Amino acid sequence: MVSEEMYELGSKRSAIRELFEYGKKRAEVVGAENVYDFSLGNPTVPAPDCVNETIRELTEELNSIQLHGYTSAQGDLECRQATADYLNRTYGTHFHADNFYMTMGAAASLSICFKALTTDRDDEFITIAPFFPEYRVFVESAGAKLVVIPPDTSNFQIDFDALEKSLTPHTKGVIINSPNNPSGAVYSAETIAHLAEILRKKSVEFGTEIFILSDEPYREIAYDGVEVPYVTEFYDNTLVCYSYSKSLSLPGERIGYVLVPDEAYESKKIYAAICGAGRALGYVCAPSLFQKVVTRCIGATGDISLYKKNRDILYKGLTDIGYECYKPDGAFYMFVKALEPDADAFCEKAKEEDLLIVSATGFGCPGYVRISYCVDEDMIRRSFAAFERLYKKYK
Amino acid sequence: MVSEEMYELGSKRSAIRELFEYGKKRAEVVGAENVYDFSLGNPTVPAPDCVNETIRELTEELNSIQLHGYTSAQGDLECRQATADYLNRTYGTHFHADNFYMTMGAAASLSICFKALTTDRDDEFITIAPFFPEYRVFVESAGAKLVVIPPDTSNFQIDFDALEKSLTPHTKGVIINSPNNPSGAVYSAETIAHLAEILRKKSVEFGTEIFILSDEPYREIAYDGVEVPYVTEFYDNTLVCYSYSKSLSLPGERIGYVLVPDEAYESKKIYAAICGAGRALGYVCAPSLFQKVVTRCIGATGDISLYKKNRDILYKGLTDIGYECYKPDGAFYMFVKALEPDADAFCEKAKEEDLLIVSATGFGCPGYVRISYCVDEDMIRRSFAAFERLYKKYK
Repeated sequence: MVSEEMYELGSKRSAIRELFEYGKKRAEVVGAENVYDFSLGNPTVPAPDCVNETIRELTEELNSIQLHGYTSAQGDLECRQATADYLNRTYGTHFHADNFYMTMGAAASLSICFKALTTDRDDEFITIAPFFPEYRVFVESAGAKLVVIPPDTSNFQIDFDALEKSLTPHTKGVIINSPNNPSGAVYSAETIAHLAEILRKKSVEFGTEIFILSDEPYREIAYDGVEVPYVTEFYDNTLVCYSYSKSLSLPGERIGYVLVPDEAYESKKIYAAICGAGRALGYVCAPSLFQKVVTRCIGATGDISLYKKNRDILYKGLTDIGYECYKPDGAFYMFVKALEPDADAFCEKAKEEDLLIVSATGFGCPGYVRISYCVDEDMIRRSFAAFERLYKKYK
Repeated sequence: MVSEEMYELGSKRSAIRELFEYGKKRAEVVGAENVYDFSLGNPTVPAPDCVNETIRELTEELNSIQLHGYTSAQGDLECRQATADYLNRTYGTHFHADNFYMTMGAAASLSICFKALTTDRDDEFITIAPFFPEYRVFVESAGAKLVVIPPDTSNFQIDFDALEKSLTPHTKGVIINSPNNPSGAVYSAETIAHLAEILRKKSVEFGTEIFILSDEPYREIAYDGVEVPYVTEFYDNTLVCYSYSKSLSLPGERIGYVLVPDEAYESKKIYAAICGAGRALGYVCAPSLFQKVVTRCIGATGDISLYKKNRDILYKGLTDIGYECYKPDGAFYMFVKALEPDADAFCEKAKEEDLLIVSATGFGCPGYVRISYCVDEDMIRRSFAAFERLYKKYK
């Protein structure tokens, strides 16, 4: 009577959401100050002031139709132009307004790209573990297959041998996510260049076009001067899926874009297919008010230094205890080696200490856990005693 | 390389949008005051004051995470509760918060329902002409087929003989849209009751569940005390697809819901499948700020009396000239008989008079045109001379 596949998707709560709900209940029993919830990736840094200021200004300046009316399906020209200008100023690129299709955030951007590019049930999209588990949902919903490359846990860049072996004439695209959720790694220019080289070679070998889908919600969240290379500068067939959720701290408002550079193969045709996929999925236009907010606030970010401070405190605290951590260059997650091979079991043991951390098994990286540090600094400091008790259970 | 189907969808501009763009160009030549653009259905009545007032209040009252953070996938509890309370107060229904799944407007609601209900390539959704052409796009994108029942042009209710013959064991649902775009008709209680009776009978005959998908963006826009019956009161297996675009005049902000009543067959399973379909299509949550706006402004509308005034002026003007018009009970469209069998050719002749009106061929109702009267009253008055010249070309 209903689609079993959709029922499954809708009735199985994500493990992360489950953990978060558990934390709320547990707080009622032991007190909120005694639960250390590192489960969610909900930005804790407030939106920059310009967001709410702009919202108030817009309600005074624009009439109702200008402010709340339909925009064109690809988005307000002003918003697309502001986005192009910002990127050109920041990365030395040469985009123009018509390279951009405004969306309802990165999940929408990705879903739209998969739908636009999928032509056959054998089509494959490759991603590199650890990876955001919703990729599988979006790819399969578009009628294609997700292929996962095992993680390179030495530095969380790309295992190129494994990648090269996985590329086939069915490969439609490779999804990358840098800064990465959950590892916190940023792909270096060398990594991107090497990836580009392999994809160019394989495209020629197969006589196909292979796209990079660059999922970039964490682009602005990088530390210690680490640069996040702009992928279109390395590879022509790149579609950028961007979200303002993290940079402007407004994940609930759903605003982002797909960028189709002129250099991409038959870019105008791809752009049209993206417009068509947006239409077919029921996206009419990106939210009007927030397109205008983005236009005026682009380039602003919340106070990212708070995330860096949290990272430093957490990294020092955990490594001092003895945990093996990957020091994140970006995003707001710490990737930590579990103290037993079964990360799920390790997370259950952590739960006994009221430490809510997420097993990375679902991210395609067994043996690791994700600790989200977009949380209160104070909670991080209070949690170390519990992390120490957990450690002593094993050593 | 890209999906030809998506490319087609994205590269063919809709005829309506095309006409609107033509109007803008034509205005540069002959002056905006000499172009009579009745093409689009963009609400011209401003949003009620409470919308912008609430937006400003919310930016002062709530912190950034409360205001702009992720909401749960099904939507804020407060928003769903306010929606249930409003409907119960207004229609004497008995809904609760968990009957509602907040969406990004009616297009999203419909797309999600089709995706949730479609289990087989032979699945069919029936709609009654004249109908909103995007239904075909959404239904086919979900992998099902759209079946169109010819219009009953005597009163734009439902041709029940034709409907009954079209119902098969493959019928998953019947899409209705009342008040109707483009006819302006409102389905009477008698019509809904008769529809319900037939569907109950056929469900038993086939041993299937047949759903009514009630697409209701125009619910509050009805004139002269005409009642828009609440469909769930007539038929258990009803899914309501609602949008605040028209009632609150904020079509660009994308906010609406799917309502799954407890009375629907296996309603909890349907609700879960709807959550799953939302997830699979890349909808993370409905826009957070506007969920909160709806919570506080529910029941308010823009000044709908302006649409009624326009309707009365346009109806009198056109019928005085000699046009045969269906007097609309709701929405903001006038449905008028073309003066030749080919409505497309008629619209081209109208264009020569700078009258931009939409052929209803694409709405499944050949020989008719749609005249959108969510426009300036003054333009309606100025247009009559042109309508008269057009009339004289034929008579």
